[in-house]
Amino acid sequence: MKKNLIVGQSGGPTAVINGSLYGAVSEALFSTDSIDKVYGMCNGIEGFLKGNVIDMAPLKEDGTLDIIKTTPAAYLGSCRYKLPEDSMDPVYDELFAKMEEYNIGYFMYIGGNDSMDTVSKLSAQAARRGSDIRFMGLPKTIDNDLVCTDHTPGFGSAAKFVAEALREITIDACVYGTKKSVTVVEIMGRHAGWLTAASVLARCEGNPEPSLIYLPERDFDVEDFLTRVSGCLEKKNNIVVAISEGIHDKNGTFICEYSQGDVGIDQFGHKSLSGSGKFLENLIKERLGVKVRSVELNVLQRCASSMLSASDLSEAIESGRVAVRTALKGGTGKMIGFKRCDNNGYYVEYVPVDVHEVCNKEKKVPDNMISEDGADITEAFVDYALPLIQGEVALPRKNSLPLFAIR
Amino acid sequence: MKKNLIVGQSGGPTAVINGSLYGAVSEALFSTDSIDKVYGMCNGIEGFLKGNVIDMAPLKEDGTLDIIKTTPAAYLGSCRYKLPEDSMDPVYDELFAKMEEYNIGYFMYIGGNDSMDTVSKLSAQAARRGSDIRFMGLPKTIDNDLVCTDHTPGFGSAAKFVAEALREITIDACVYGTKKSVTVVEIMGRHAGWLTAASVLARCEGNPEPSLIYLPERDFDVEDFLTRVSGCLEKKNNIVVAISEGIHDKNGTFICEYSQGDVGIDQFGHKSLSGSGKFLENLIKERLGVKVRSVELNVLQRCASSMLSASDLSEAIESGRVAVRTALKGGTGKMIGFKRCDNNGYYVEYVPVDVHEVCNKEKKVPDNMISEDGADITEAFVDYALPLIQGEVALPRKNSLPLFAIR
Repeated sequence: MKKNLIVGQSGGPTAVINGSLYGAVSEALFSTDSIDKVYGMCNGIEGFLKGNVIDMAPLKEDGTLDIIKTTPAAYLGSCRYKLPEDSMDPVYDELFAKMEEYNIGYFMYIGGNDSMDTVSKLSAQAARRGSDIRFMGLPKTIDNDLVCTDHTPGFGSAAKFVAEALREITIDACVYGTKKSVTVVEIMGRHAGWLTAASVLARCEGNPEPSLIYLPERDFDVEDFLTRVSGCLEKKNNIVVAISEGIHDKNGTFICEYSQGDVGIDQFGHKSLSGSGKFLENLIKERLGVKVRSVELNVLQRCASSMLSASDLSEAIESGRVAVRTALKGGTGKMIGFKRCDNNGYYVEYVPVDVHEVCNKEKKVPDNMISEDGADITEAFVDYALPLIQGEVALPRKNSLPLFAIR
Repeated sequence: MKKNLIVGQSGGPTAVINGSLYGAVSEALFSTDSIDKVYGMCNGIEGFLKGNVIDMAPLKEDGTLDIIKTTPAAYLGSCRYKLPEDSMDPVYDELFAKMEEYNIGYFMYIGGNDSMDTVSKLSAQAARRGSDIRFMGLPKTIDNDLVCTDHTPGFGSAAKFVAEALREITIDACVYGTKKSVTVVEIMGRHAGWLTAASVLARCEGNPEPSLIYLPERDFDVEDFLTRVSGCLEKKNNIVVAISEGIHDKNGTFICEYSQGDVGIDQFGHKSLSGSGKFLENLIKERLGVKVRSVELNVLQRCASSMLSASDLSEAIESGRVAVRTALKGGTGKMIGFKRCDNNGYYVEYVPVDVHEVCNKEKKVPDNMISEDGADITEAFVDYALPLIQGEVALPRKNSLPLFAIR
């Protein structure tokens, strides 16, 4: 008997999470031999628990699915809902009852660390319960911090945004060339500095900035920072510094906490951060007496559709397709990992990896990609990241503004 | 005897000020019958006074000029240098001596209000001195606040960035649909709200946001604002509010100044100053107890090359060409104004207007473009602005990153 497939999205938005959705849904709709209905759960498992489920087939018929492909953020809506550690918690009965109600055979979940935790727990539950529902994780995060995969969909487009933005901000910052100035650009990334590292990609074709790049992988020392900024300003008038929102001192105190009394904590225990750039702006102004501006790239770095990486988008779509095919072949408790094969130019193989190995871990930027002084990024990162930002994507537009699929 | 032409850039960067430069330089290089050398002054008249002048012809030969066309900010560098009111000030002797030294016959200056003041003063000086040097102003400002012209180059591309960014920010803000949230987007414009008004262009094709739009043309009342935000949140969960950085209360106090009294002092004793958006973020959080985020679009709105309006760029180029042709025909003391002719679809005529009428004035958003309650924008603005953001521009790229001309 044919079963139904359901797909959900979870965690923070990216520019290509809907590419993964497109890939999974179009593959599932194509697999009519094995799959009956294709459902989307709205706002992840939180919505699923409330029966907030839609039929995806009409979206293909009316052309919406094609627009979903290049729509940023999460078409189905997202959630931040952590399943209980206690495997006997009644929510698991509720969830499996809901899956039975919808005759679900295949459960696809697109997200980052926390979402893989969900896939891990649900597949473990299925094993305990003797359920044959197959659970697959599709990677997604601009943070690029998932283990068991070379990189994650969403990172390439965000990295491209960061690189382009840094080129533009630099050229903007240099117009009054004769006056000394510092521009501090704050980039997303709490614990892993991959996205901040991407700022080094801006340093090409005549652009010498950013002069300094600071990741959360290294302890940040305020006095050493000021010394380095001064040193750079002795050599040139206008410098740009890229910092991760998550930079912290040797005691683990976030630099943004220097300026804030208390910091909010979300339900996964993440501290809610902003303001490292603003803090350093004020510090440089006071201590070095030069013109300073801080720029927070903010949500645009994860949701800008005008700077999509074609490579990133096509990999996101393909990971969705492969996830469905893997489930149909019997796979469960897996995340689709990306294996880089670049003997003869860059390409990716999609390899199902054990989701239990992925969840609740963080892949940091390795030592060989960070300069010894901790204030710059090496060529090893450039070689790694450059293939991920390649190619432009033409968006569907009306009146010259991008068309987005809005539920 | 043939004379030389010199062109300079002044004031804040835009995405197409180099389009105007490209237009002026390529027309001048083409006009070999009348013009000998084509010079660029680096960092405006401030650099010119120091003899900081480059020959532009080699840039055409080596292909740089083509890349200049789509490079944001100001290729020649900019300045903020106001000429003295006293027409007998010795700086005028210096300037005219420099022009004689370089055998200048045509002086092109690209900029906003203050730059037109420079053109006005120099052309008045020329008249007093019996000099036949011809002075032309080329309009430029994302603020769109110049009089005697329908709009200004730079506004269309900035407006397109604002509209696209608001669409993206909205879709990002709505992913956790079930929780109430407010996103406050702060847009450039100290005294004129044209660019903030452009946020209304995002409200199309299924996107209902921004719910509220506030320009500096109207007094801002904090209590009325909170009441309206509450009212919107009763109808929907996620709202986006667009505000101009220059919103002020009925006493003329900027809203961003409100935060400077009660803002926290960090552990190093630095006072942390923030903008209008940050102030309203904290205010809404405290008073309405909902999730709030503020986003400052910051410099990207004026220097993003990835969202260039083709219409804006081609008009910038054409204004440069027309300025040179006008000067060659004997025009001086003029700015190239844009006259909108849209009986049969939108097009623009380029009309030299008296630069003395332009400088030191500000064109505000007229009453008919602002809703009666002062918290929204009317269709009259949409009709006005939509033609200005039309068309995309493919940038020259290498490794998928835009190539910029850097001096």
